Amino acid sequence: MEDIQHQQMGYDRAATMFAPDGHILQVEYAEKTARLGSSSLGIVYNKGVLVVADRRHRDELVIDESANKINEIDEHLLAVSSGITSDARVLIERARVSAQNHRISYDSAPSTESIVREVADVKQQFTQYGGARPFGVAMMFAGMNGRPDLYTTDIMGNYLKFHANAIGENDEKIKEMLRSKYKKDLDRAGAIKLAMTIFKEILKDKFDVKRFDVAVVEEGKIKRLAAKDLEKN
Amino acid sequence: MEDIQHQQMGYDRAATMFAPDGHILQVEYAEKTARLGSSSLGIVYNKGVLVVADRRHRDELVIDESANKINEIDEHLLAVSSGITSDARVLIERARVSAQNHRISYDSAPSTESIVREVADVKQQFTQYGGARPFGVAMMFAGMNGRPDLYTTDIMGNYLKFHANAIGENDEKIKEMLRSKYKKDLDRAGAIKLAMTIFKEILKDKFDVKRFDVAVVEEGKIKRLAAKDLEKN
Amino acid sequence: MEDIQHQQMGYDRAATMFAPDGHILQVEYAEKTARLGSSSLGIVYNKGVLVVADRRHRDELVIDESANKINEIDEHLLAVSSGITSDARVLIERARVSAQNHRISYDSAPSTESIVREVADVKQQFTQYGGARPFGVAMMFAGMNGRPDLYTTDIMGNYLKFHANAIGENDEKIKEMLRSKYKKDLDRAGAIKLAMTIFKEILKDKFDVKRFDVAVVEEGKIKRLAAKDLEKN
Amino acid sequence: MEDIQHQQMGYDRAATMFAPDGHILQVEYAEKTARLGSSSLGIVYNKGVLVVADRRHRDELVIDESANKINEIDEHLLAVSSGITSDARVLIERARVSAQNHRISYDSAPSTESIVREVADVKQQFTQYGGARPFGVAMMFAGMNGRPDLYTTDIMGNYLKFHANAIGENDEKIKEMLRSKYKKDLDRAGAIKLAMTIFKEILKDKFDVKRFDVAVVEEGKIKRLAAKDLEKN
Amino acid sequence: MEDIQHQQMGYDRAATMFAPDGHILQVEYAEKTARLGSSSLGIVYNKGVLVVADRRHRDELVIDESANKINEIDEHLLAVSSGITSDARVLIERARVSAQNHRISYDSAPSTESIVREVADVKQQFTQYGGARPFGVAMMFAGMNGRPDLYTTDIMGNYLKFHANAIGENDEKIKEMLRSKYKKDLDRAGAIKLAMTIFKEILKDKFDVKRFDVAVVEEGKIKRLAAKDLEKN
Amino acid sequence: MEDIQHQQMGYDRAATMFAPDGHILQVEYAEKTARLGSSSLGIVYNKGVLVVADRRHRDELVIDESANKINEIDEHLLAVSSGITSDARVLIERARVSAQNHRISYDSAPSTESIVREVADVKQQFTQYGGARPFGVAMMFAGMNGRPDLYTTDIMGNYLKFHANAIGENDEKIKEMLRSKYKKDLDRAGAIKLAMTIFKEILKDKFDVKRFDVAVVEEGKIKRLAAKDLEKN
Amino acid sequence: MEDIQHQQMGYDRAATMFAPDGHILQVEYAEKTARLGSSSLGIVYNKGVLVVADRRHRDELVIDESANKINEIDEHLLAVSSGITSDARVLIERARVSAQNHRISYDSAPSTESIVREVADVKQQFTQYGGARPFGVAMMFAGMNGRPDLYTTDIMGNYLKFHANAIGENDEKIKEMLRSKYKKDLDRAGAIKLAMTIFKEILKDKFDVKRFDVAVVEEGKIKRLAAKDLEKN
Repeated sequence: MEDIQHQQMGYDRAATMFAPDGHILQVEYAEKTARLGSSSLGIVYNKGVLVVADRRHRDELVIDESANKINEIDEHLLAVSSGITSDARVLIERARVSAQNHRISYDSAPSTESIVREVADVKQQFTQYGGARPFGVAMMFAGMNGRPDLYTTDIMGNYLKFHANAIGENDEKIKEMLRSKYKKDLDRAGAIKLAMTIFKEILKDKFDVKRFDVAVVEEGKIKRLAAKDLEKN
Repeated sequence: MEDIQHQQMGYDRAATMFAPDGHILQVEYAEKTARLGSSSLGIVYNKGVLVVADRRHRDELVIDESANKINEIDEHLLAVSSGITSDARVLIERARVSAQNHRISYDSAPSTESIVREVADVKQQFTQYGGARPFGVAMMFAGMNGRPDLYTTDIMGNYLKFHANAIGENDEKIKEMLRSKYKKDLDRAGAIKLAMTIFKEILKDKFDVKRFDVAVVEEGKIKRLAAKDLEKN
Repeated sequence: MEDIQHQQMGYDRAATMFAPDGHILQVEYAEKTARLGSSSLGIVYNKGVLVVADRRHRDELVIDESANKINEIDEHLLAVSSGITSDARVLIERARVSAQNHRISYDSAPSTESIVREVADVKQQFTQYGGARPFGVAMMFAGMNGRPDLYTTDIMGNYLKFHANAIGENDEKIKEMLRSKYKKDLDRAGAIKLAMTIFKEILKDKFDVKRFDVAVVEEGKIKRLAAKDLEKN
Repeated sequence: MEDIQHQQMGYDRAATMFAPDGHILQVEYAEKTARLGSSSLGIVYNKGVLVVADRRHRDELVIDESANKINEIDEHLLAVSSGITSDARVLIERARVSAQNHRISYDSAPSTESIVREVADVKQQFTQYGGARPFGVAMMFAGMNGRPDLYTTDIMGNYLKFHANAIGENDEKIKEMLRSKYKKDLDRAGAIKLAMTIFKEILKDKFDVKRFDVAVVEEGKIKRLAAKDLEKN
Repeated sequence: MEDIQHQQMGYDRAATMFAPDGHILQVEYAEKTARLGSSSLGIVYNKGVLVVADRRHRDELVIDESANKINEIDEHLLAVSSGITSDARVLIERARVSAQNHRISYDSAPSTESIVREVADVKQQFTQYGGARPFGVAMMFAGMNGRPDLYTTDIMGNYLKFHANAIGENDEKIKEMLRSKYKKDLDRAGAIKLAMTIFKEILKDKFDVKRFDVAVVEEGKIKRLAAKDLEKN
Repeated sequence: MEDIQHQQMGYDRAATMFAPDGHILQVEYAEKTARLGSSSLGIVYNKGVLVVADRRHRDELVIDESANKINEIDEHLLAVSSGITSDARVLIERARVSAQNHRISYDSAPSTESIVREVADVKQQFTQYGGARPFGVAMMFAGMNGRPDLYTTDIMGNYLKFHANAIGENDEKIKEMLRSKYKKDLDRAGAIKLAMTIFKEILKDKFDVKRFDVAVVEEGKIKRLAAKDLEKN
Repeated sequence: MEDIQHQQMGYDRAATMFAPDGHILQVEYAEKTARLGSSSLGIVYNKGVLVVADRRHRDELVIDESANKINEIDEHLLAVSSGITSDARVLIERARVSAQNHRISYDSAPSTESIVREVADVKQQFTQYGGARPFGVAMMFAGMNGRPDLYTTDIMGNYLKFHANAIGENDEKIKEMLRSKYKKDLDRAGAIKLAMTIFKEILKDKFDVKRFDVAVVEEGKIKRLAAKDLEKN
């Protein structure tokens, strides 16, 4: 009811406008866009981070590698997204350039957080300045600078570091399951098993290990896993 | 019903606005523009890529070469489009300049994907920043850097690599037929036969090999095919 | 009916907005402006191009040479327009400067198409960027670089090369007659005869050879023709 | 009826918007402003150009020379205007600077048309770009480069060269009378007589030679005429 | 009635919009602002110009010199205004800087008209370009370059030279009285007497010589007059 | 009634718009903001200027010096404000920088009026140009360049010099009392006594000398007074 | 009632618009955003400043250090915020850069107030200029330059120095309790005890020392306290 009133009053027409209750409705709509995307799940385990991204329906005309949802930012740092893919690409490209600049300037790998913060700052600006829409994409970053790190950024440009987290479709359900089942002393096999258990429960009949793009960051390197790597767990 | 409400509320007036359900309606309208254009179809086969573009009704006052729908970006890279032709021309011109710059800087052919990504990035920007409308055009790129590649970009600036794909009028029907009939081990003759079979079914009485602009990219070169090349298959 | 709905919804207020059916209504309105202008007709014949522009009602207070509708861009290249004359003048002036720059830089005549493309690109920009209206003018270019060429550009910035074409009032009727009567092996006299035949049928009682500004491009030069040159055909 | 609909739909709020019938209503409204101004009339005769500007009601508090409607651009070139006087002043000042620049650069008098075109180009821009209103002024230029020339520019930035013409209040009536009475072999006395005849018919009881600011351009020089010069004709 | 319609249609929301009858309503509203200000009256006499400005109600908390309505632009040039005082101050400051620049560049006093034209040009711009409102102020300038001059500028940026004139409250009434009583051969005493006669008739019971700020420009210098100088006349 | 009509018509939405009666409603609304602030009172006396600023309700959690309403611009120049405190801070900071620049450039104290004019000019600009709101603050400046001076600026950017004046809540009542009780030959004790008398009458039961921030400018220096300095008067 | 009228009239759509009663409604809405955030409380005691920030509900998937609400600006200066976290991050980052620049330029710690003023100035600008929304965040700064200081900034860019203060949810209730219980001669233990007493009363059953991020600034250094440090008090 109140939502409809706020819509009729036009509080939801620009990211630069607060509604009377203090909400920024354009940002909330963009969050719905992010939730229209397929799910991704990240889990930190003892020696690394696991990221599992659901490609949902697979179009057999599309070449697999091209639709892969796991994007390399740097050799120790990857990102997955949910929402508008082209918006994500712009942010990922920016992150890559930033990582390369860091390597050129300091001859070392950039910290995961510094890259995440830069992406989050760009997102924040697009919710505050007029003349453009917010980036319609939630993002999850997995990186390793000594220890494994998992970050998530929302539309508003907030970011937090997680033991485990999910973005996209059913994110709340997946997070609920992570909260009840995640344990800090998991190894890689345990993390994969947990991810598969969750997706089986979410996807039910539609579960199929071939739906997923999967990678781990271990020993400071990204390693992509194949369907068979999931099945043997 | 909901669409009409969203129109009355004005969520569809700018590409910089999300509707309450997370959609960007101006982009969806521009996609309709792209679908108003005539069909083009691309097929990757063992040694190259085939592109067949339907010119639809031919105006006998127009000089054929001028209405040719197959645009050369570089000697190994072509593009076809569906939607607003002048919008496509601007993007194709930009792709050409980018390809030339690559050749001047690196003395080698640019990768198909790098050119596609640049065009897609421009498209994305026009869906995010105000003060201009999105480019009303879907595009298909066929190129060859060692192996044959077929890419498609949509209004939003997304792009994917395909085994075979279609843009423009009836794109969904053509894609459905490609999904059921496309095989990865096709040769050029097989690809042409598949394309003709599909267009015969789509166009029925109106089918005529003279309707089509056709080219293949093989051995890193674009070769334009004539009507007789289609008939003999 | 749908048009009125689209007007009431305001989809027709800016060239930067797509209507729900994918149309850009401001551009369609500007096309009406172009059709409010008087007719011009172009015909390519064996050794050149003929352009006949109807001045419609002649104001005896106006000095003829000042109202002449045939504009020289370069010695081998002319343009006629239909719609807002001052808009056309701006584009013609730009074309002239571009032609001069080409001569200075390369010491040769610019190709007709390069000049046409530049004008068309400007037109396209004014349909995509906000803060200005589209150019309300259709244009026809006749030029000769070795062979005679006839181009037409519309509001949207599309251009094509024609054997024969018309712009302005009654353009569709004239084109229909050209389609049925045009032959590729015409000579100059035949082209003039065809043009006069068509205008007689269009203008009926109002036909008068003095209504027309006429020129041919032959041997790489523009030659203006007088009323008597038309009559003797 | 249609006008009122177009007003209610808001097509008449910006010069950058076409109405559905292709008209630019803000420009048409500005033309009304131009017609609210008092009349001016120009006549080319065998050795020069005559310009007669009606000052309409004369405020005895105003010093005559200050309200004089005939503005010198250069020694061989004058302008009168109808509509918003301050808008005209801006354009006249620009014309003067342009004329001076020409003299400095080329050490010769600028052609009348080059000055007219520059003013017309400025007017055109203010009908195409947003963020400003069109210049609300019609202008008439009389100049002499070898031969006498009379030009008129409208709101839209169109200009034409005339044997004789009028701007401002009753412009259509005056032009009708010019069409029926103007002859090309007039001398100065004949031109003055024709002008007075026309104004007598237009102004009837209100006719008074003291209402007019009058000048001729002859032998490349502006000469202002006094009331007595009119009466003796 | 028509006014109300134009208001409801929104033609009066921006100085950059013409109403259907050719009027610019924002400018007309600003003229009302100018008429809300207190009256000033100027009279040219044989050896100078007299300016009398009514301060209307005097606040005894205000220090007189600070509320003085007569502003010196240069030693030979003063200005009074009616409307928004801070708008006037900005224009007066600009006029002062311009006068100083002239003295620095040419080592002579600037002409009254050149200063008036500069102020008027600024006013005109603020009625043509969007993003700002017109200056809400009418101004009267009295100066002396050899002979005494009196100018008035309106909101629109028009200016004229006067024998005598008034701005602000009751300007039309005062001008009517000036028209019937002003004579060109006045001396200073006669001018003061005329001014006092007029204000007595306008102000009736409220007339008091202490209400007025008064100055003359004579022999190229501004001289401020005191109440007693008015009484002795 | 008329106000409500003007609100419904939208004349009060921008400081760049005149209402049909010539008022600028956004400025009038901002004046209400200024009147929502607590009162300040200034009195010029024989050897200086007294400023008394009411802090109204005192929050015991706030550190007094931080809420002090008397701001030093330069050692001889202070300002108090009423309205939006952060708006005032921006203007005061600007005044301070300007005063410092003057000292650096000329090695002397800036005149009070030059600083006041600069602040007033900034205020004026924010009522004329779009894209920002007016400064919501009235300000009072007390300074001494040889003689003591008291200035007040309003929202519109007007400023005047006063014998005594008030801004903020109850400003009209305080000014009325100043008009009836202020005498020009006051000494400091007399000025303080007058201020206290007025505030006692305004605040009645709520009067308490601890409510006030008080300072004088004497001998070219600001001296802050404590509550006990007020009581002994 | 009046609020609803102001909403319907649209006075609450931009921070650059005053409502008829002088309020800036967008700023008031943003203040609601700030109050939607969790509470933070600051207390100055004899040797330092205590800051206690409630994290409210803790998500066990989030890594604690990442959600820590106490941000270091410089070694002697921290900030907590309530409202939009990403907005706060932008301001905190700016404060950090400013502090570093001060250290580089002057080789000393910046004063707490200079950093607070810079943040407050940025906030003020975003309430005055269009094209962006205000920062939706209240902030509390605790610093030590010789003596301990506690500052708070609101949406509007106002700031004050406090003995003790609160921001976020229940800020008014907490401030009320601080007013009745705060004493100036507290030591650290007393300050912690006061903070815990208040939060126990506010949170009732939900009180848990693990909810809080706590730090003190003492001897010019930030020291973070653990849950056990709170319990032992």
